[in-house]
Amino acid sequence: MARFIVEVMLKPEILDSQGQAVARALPRLGFEGVTEVRQGKRFEIELEGPADEAATERVRKMAETLLANPVIETFELRAE
Amino acid sequence: MARFIVEVMLKPEILDSQGQAVARALPRLGFEGVTEVRQGKRFEIELEGPADEAATERVRKMAETLLANPVIETFELRAE
Repeated sequence: MARFIVEVMLKPEILDSQGQAVARALPRLGFEGVTEVRQGKRFEIELEGPADEAATERVRKMAETLLANPVIETFELRAE
Repeated sequence: MARFIVEVMLKPEILDSQGQAVARALPRLGFEGVTEVRQGKRFEIELEGPADEAATERVRKMAETLLANPVIETFELRAE
């Protein structure tokens, strides 16, 4: 059993309206001093077989194809 | 400047319909052998000041108050 984490974030130049909404809400809740919030997605993926190079490559393809939109998002992946 | 990562995932006993939708889509795209997908949120938070105990505690409160719903979600936080 192989287990991978894929983290997907908007590219820095893309407006992150979810993150901005959180950043604006925090002072209203009494949390001052927050300079930036960015919000992304986190996937936990379990595959049959070992967490080898081939499995990593398959998860990379999944991320490029389905989990992230390469036009506006970047992703990082790691075995866990 | 302190920088924290907060990762929010649904509790294991809560149905993850987003993750299930991804898991069902993968075989249609040619990716076999995926046994489970769970989808959560990832926040990058920047604060004024040092990444000390007090800052960590503030971010923990933010996570409990706004970023996660403790009834159905768990979160992990770390300084980066």
